[in-house]
Amino acid sequence: MKINLNRLLIDLEKYAEYGKNEHGGVTRPSFSKADHRVRQLFIEELEDMGLQVTIDGAANIWGKHKGNGTKKGSIVIGSHLDSVLNGGKYDGPLGVLMAKEIIRTLIEDKVILDHDVEIVSFTAEESNDFNLSTFGSRSFVGRLTVEKLHDARDSKGGLLHDELIKVGGGLDKFPMMVNMQNDKKAFIELHIEQGQRLESANISMAVIYSVVGTFRSFVKVIGEPNHSGTTMMQNRKDALTAAAEMVLEVERYCKDKGDVVGTVGKLNVSPNAANIIPGQIDFIFEVRAETEEKIENTVEAIQEAWQEIAKRRQVKIQQEVFLDQKPVALDQDIITILENAATEMDEPCLTLPSMAVHDAAHMASITKSAMIFVKSIDGKSHCPEEYSHPNDIEKAGNLILQGIVHIDRALSVTEYSVPPGN
Amino acid sequence: MKINLNRLLIDLEKYAEYGKNEHGGVTRPSFSKADHRVRQLFIEELEDMGLQVTIDGAANIWGKHKGNGTKKGSIVIGSHLDSVLNGGKYDGPLGVLMAKEIIRTLIEDKVILDHDVEIVSFTAEESNDFNLSTFGSRSFVGRLTVEKLHDARDSKGGLLHDELIKVGGGLDKFPMMVNMQNDKKAFIELHIEQGQRLESANISMAVIYSVVGTFRSFVKVIGEPNHSGTTMMQNRKDALTAAAEMVLEVERYCKDKGDVVGTVGKLNVSPNAANIIPGQIDFIFEVRAETEEKIENTVEAIQEAWQEIAKRRQVKIQQEVFLDQKPVALDQDIITILENAATEMDEPCLTLPSMAVHDAAHMASITKSAMIFVKSIDGKSHCPEEYSHPNDIEKAGNLILQGIVHIDRALSVTEYSVPPGN
Repeated sequence: MKINLNRLLIDLEKYAEYGKNEHGGVTRPSFSKADHRVRQLFIEELEDMGLQVTIDGAANIWGKHKGNGTKKGSIVIGSHLDSVLNGGKYDGPLGVLMAKEIIRTLIEDKVILDHDVEIVSFTAEESNDFNLSTFGSRSFVGRLTVEKLHDARDSKGGLLHDELIKVGGGLDKFPMMVNMQNDKKAFIELHIEQGQRLESANISMAVIYSVVGTFRSFVKVIGEPNHSGTTMMQNRKDALTAAAEMVLEVERYCKDKGDVVGTVGKLNVSPNAANIIPGQIDFIFEVRAETEEKIENTVEAIQEAWQEIAKRRQVKIQQEVFLDQKPVALDQDIITILENAATEMDEPCLTLPSMAVHDAAHMASITKSAMIFVKSIDGKSHCPEEYSHPNDIEKAGNLILQGIVHIDRALSVTEYSVPPGN
Repeated sequence: MKINLNRLLIDLEKYAEYGKNEHGGVTRPSFSKADHRVRQLFIEELEDMGLQVTIDGAANIWGKHKGNGTKKGSIVIGSHLDSVLNGGKYDGPLGVLMAKEIIRTLIEDKVILDHDVEIVSFTAEESNDFNLSTFGSRSFVGRLTVEKLHDARDSKGGLLHDELIKVGGGLDKFPMMVNMQNDKKAFIELHIEQGQRLESANISMAVIYSVVGTFRSFVKVIGEPNHSGTTMMQNRKDALTAAAEMVLEVERYCKDKGDVVGTVGKLNVSPNAANIIPGQIDFIFEVRAETEEKIENTVEAIQEAWQEIAKRRQVKIQQEVFLDQKPVALDQDIITILENAATEMDEPCLTLPSMAVHDAAHMASITKSAMIFVKSIDGKSHCPEEYSHPNDIEKAGNLILQGIVHIDRALSVTEYSVPPGN
């Protein structure tokens, strides 16, 4: 039993047309017009395959391929269909479309497992205008509640709830997600690595054993806006030169720490005029590392250096932490099954931590979860040049296909069977 | 003969209501609604004073108080009524409203000079969305031509010509400005210092003998956008950390050069998302200095340092110069008359170069021009906290009032009289 690579590659190209931009990239954030259109396509295709489609409160799309009925619950495979602005065609869609390909293969080969096999496409996995990345999976596992989301708005003041309604979700449907959780017996997410570890090792894929933690804060640097001609250099309280030092300190500190990364990806200058010394800078500070301790040490050391900069330059720094995601260990049973499947297929496979947060990190809180990474060329991602080689994609797909057959059996051994007639 | 300080202060407050924002500052760029409203007020007030109002092609507003007819042409006093975003109430309006106060005083005291005395309010002196600062005076003296301005658009794609039409100007009226030039026999602009030199010397005002040159370029730093988690520090081509070094180099180089200032006031990050390493930074680089040589040396030295940064960080730098304003010497005759007037009034007065470009720098190319600076508190400008003390303002106003009487006489000595009956 093998997946049909060509069919999958055609699917990848087809989905990349939705939100395609003039740079050849994909701009398809959740709730955009392109997202609305791709959701419609996806739901129609799942229905055409005979899957039982459900849209939950967070507008996550689920499609169930029924098992033989002896075991309750499903083995879930999936990822997300939303993209960053000007992203590529693999980050997200590869995992969702591979899930579709795997279920098509099961259907064609008339393979009926003890458990249902289910596909999922999570909403708004990427950083988005609501400042709620991995929104769909976090909502599904109960980490984002109706109370928290009630007043969530995008930068234009639009309500999240209104956007959810447009795509079949809505905060009133959130309680239904709690009931759905028990039904999920395992979760596997296929994703591109987005780094260069597999490429450096010249290996096609990796089983992921943990997901790094992510810390993010809003940082405000307050100086003094003033005339750029008449304010002599020594009289300035330039918020931009202060922020420049702070940004460089993030880089300097993280540079020699190996598995710690620190980034300022978003930064806005105010008032942002050629002849006014910047009075205020707003930026987002991010740190990712494999252990809580490393994140804490990094954030603390950088903050200490920032205080010195603020004092020396007579600017004020304000900081508000808005994300403090702890590192997550994935499920050892599933990891072992996937590693064994690779050995069986005679395919070399690394075991790595993920440096990026994925929906699997949240799903791990409610079910046995793991991930497979496929090699990224030049480590590029979140850009039009994002690419994984078809051969590597094929190996990863077949590994998951074999994997779920083994997982189905392993789960069956430890579970009560559903009595006949139920 | 003295100006009426209270009447002027009431005027300053009244005009500051147009475009007043929630920070207590003034946001009144040219062509904004607030600008439309303040123009209407200003024109009505000039007409009520009996002045002959003219609006030229650049929508500069002129108001003429006729002299006794023995000499042709006018002595012009004025500045601008537009402001930066969230600016103060003095930068620009002080010069225009003082001109109004001086002419009111002449009218009240029934002083009729040999020359006409004329008020002017120039359009779009501040940096603006058309990237055309000192637009009104540059247009008036012929430095901005119809050919250059034909396709000028703001960031939303709106045509400058359309905006000019709305306020009584228009590119079709540009030829008329050439004819108006000969009529202007002298120009004096009163402005706040916007620096701290007068405050440091504890002196109320200064006669300005030159205006610094200004260099501005658009700079593009091109790195590589990539995932902020999975791209290890050593594999990054972060355009923001590169730009941060470049911004700090501007500061570092200019810091110990005394009368040279270098600024990055406008900077935009792309794609500007928390989880994407910045792929491109666009900023405006500005240098101001008293001599051409100093500007050139500064720009060259900084560019050389930037090349090293670009090479080391493997980013690309592109630069496009869009402003290269040479330093301007103001008129020695007018300067001497103003200095003598101060001595006569027994008021101490500095003689300084201006670190900011003003409309007077352009007017100097067609007529005898000078400026008076009045002390700024804490050197603040382009911000709501901008302030000059009423006593200092009064002294500067009376200096100009005396000054134009002397200038009128001095000009008369060197000019042919208009034959009676003309």
